Amino acid sequence: MNTLILTHKDMATLVATVGHHQLMDALIQELEHAFQTHDTKTNEIPARSGFLFPKPDYGVLEWMPSHRIQQDVTVKTVVFHPSNPSRYGIPTVMATIAKYDVPSGHLAALMDGVFPTALRTGAASAVASKHLARKGPLNLAMIGCGFQSVTQIHAISRVLEIEKVYAYDIIPERAKSLQERLAFLNIEITAADLATCEANADIICTATSAAIGDPPVIEAQHLSPWCHINAIGSDMPGKLELPRHILEQALVVPDFLEQARIEGECQRLEPSEIGPSLTEILHQPERLAQAKQGISVFDSTGFALEDQVVADLVYRLATEHGLGQKLQIELLDQDPFNPYAMGIPALAGSRA
Amino acid sequence: MNTLILTHKDMATLVATVGHHQLMDALIQELEHAFQTHDTKTNEIPARSGFLFPKPDYGVLEWMPSHRIQQDVTVKTVVFHPSNPSRYGIPTVMATIAKYDVPSGHLAALMDGVFPTALRTGAASAVASKHLARKGPLNLAMIGCGFQSVTQIHAISRVLEIEKVYAYDIIPERAKSLQERLAFLNIEITAADLATCEANADIICTATSAAIGDPPVIEAQHLSPWCHINAIGSDMPGKLELPRHILEQALVVPDFLEQARIEGECQRLEPSEIGPSLTEILHQPERLAQAKQGISVFDSTGFALEDQVVADLVYRLATEHGLGQKLQIELLDQDPFNPYAMGIPALAGSRA
Repeated sequence: MNTLILTHKDMATLVATVGHHQLMDALIQELEHAFQTHDTKTNEIPARSGFLFPKPDYGVLEWMPSHRIQQDVTVKTVVFHPSNPSRYGIPTVMATIAKYDVPSGHLAALMDGVFPTALRTGAASAVASKHLARKGPLNLAMIGCGFQSVTQIHAISRVLEIEKVYAYDIIPERAKSLQERLAFLNIEITAADLATCEANADIICTATSAAIGDPPVIEAQHLSPWCHINAIGSDMPGKLELPRHILEQALVVPDFLEQARIEGECQRLEPSEIGPSLTEILHQPERLAQAKQGISVFDSTGFALEDQVVADLVYRLATEHGLGQKLQIELLDQDPFNPYAMGIPALAGSRA
Repeated sequence: MNTLILTHKDMATLVATVGHHQLMDALIQELEHAFQTHDTKTNEIPARSGFLFPKPDYGVLEWMPSHRIQQDVTVKTVVFHPSNPSRYGIPTVMATIAKYDVPSGHLAALMDGVFPTALRTGAASAVASKHLARKGPLNLAMIGCGFQSVTQIHAISRVLEIEKVYAYDIIPERAKSLQERLAFLNIEITAADLATCEANADIICTATSAAIGDPPVIEAQHLSPWCHINAIGSDMPGKLELPRHILEQALVVPDFLEQARIEGECQRLEPSEIGPSLTEILHQPERLAQAKQGISVFDSTGFALEDQVVADLVYRLATEHGLGQKLQIELLDQDPFNPYAMGIPALAGSRA
């Protein structure tokens, strides 16, 4: 029983082999299907929990488990560390994903989770935007132009016609460099001030490292009456991106209600102020039609269902293409009743 | 930033290099120190949580995290699957241990957890027995003679003089083969019926796969008045090994109160029936002296502190001896603002 290890280089090979558009399209399709068919009776997903890191290494480490009964368990361990890029030159979000075989409990795979997290967070916004935003051509405003912004724009551009992207970041060079990072999309991406972004947006994505207690990252005073917002930055209690008044006005659709009430924009809303979850609203065609006419917010805290789907897809494609390396990590092929059955002379006679 | 992978083969090399007694002695010493100095203000350890697997693959998968503030996070993922030996020829308990660097969130190491779990569960019983049982020469009764029994006896024999071991298992061959598995100890190990085991024991270890709702695994009708019991089998709500009457009579010392009240023998006790935790009692010399005179129970549910200690020791020794292999799993050495900075021609221009 080996463990398949998929490193970031295997992810790169996968993207080169499958194609970046094809990979994103496959993920969006599978994620949409997963949201449509998610059943808590056969797929157990608790709200994530974790450790808060105090300053100076301010951040959070969380485990995000999911359990398909009689099948498998997926656990993503994810760290959010806003100072990572400046201190270490590494992404804000670090992650690995482990897949366990349920019948034996064996660790079937361990993979990089940094790239899959960016992919699936983009794909989740694409699924939400496809169903909650107007049809294109549309303008998209990107608020916060770091690692996650690249896959937000890429994913949404695969399901809706994006005419122009307005980009804003508290670090102006970050907004300016987005065009270059997304050169492969052939979409006009312009750095702009916050007011211009908001005034021109049919869709807004907020993907910031706002700290606990910071003011909202948008003002939301002059939004188009059909604006759809993907708020992906909330990932710990106290962290918020949107002003309360827009949440009161909007249809708020959480990715995962139980968790959004702890960590998402929903944490300050009453139950009556929260709309159906994405899974629920996908079964309510009339509500979806209404949502497209008004302001909607996808409260995207990051749902372990998304990690399960992306891990499945990456694992399946990697297996198809023979990627990754197999290691036998666990002590399991010796005597199942003897931890010292190691073939060591001093322990001779210890094999049962 | 690489991840050090330590497989079961590296564990075997470590045992061969360091010596099985030396490794166990070092672990017992470090674990005793950890119990003595454990401070919840600097070492955050929540009660573990997990998934229960329904039949036919009855079992449990749990994550056991611990967080040394400003230092590191250790997470053991552990599976208890009683049918593993008969179905797959692999141990009942499967595990891997991950160590994360707190300042960055990077996965510093991933190691086999099967062997370390057996080691540290033995070492925990040794620490408890050293302080709660009489001095030797002593007879030890082993109830349940599977994988864990080997390190229970080995560890206890390093801190107390064990004259004879009485071994009982519901599968008689399992008890009979224990002598052979522990040949390296030169202790007389005799398979015996349950009554003989109980009547002769100064120390009892219960390490069974009793199912939820099963009757107690010992009767505890004719124990010596100074008997010390290490009950290590309880690891999920509803699973119990000891009869209630003996818990009422004994000083019950949990490894980790919060968790023992959910999963351990303590789950059916009132707070007033539970003694100090192992950490607490190690600071109470009078209480320890009393405990040695009477019946005591170490309610060993398996404390994430123990996993932190064993993972530290194994990691340190492996590093000293140049064991394991380094893999760069996470996507972290590219552009920290671009998940597609992969050097793929189709994404050219995408490096910021």
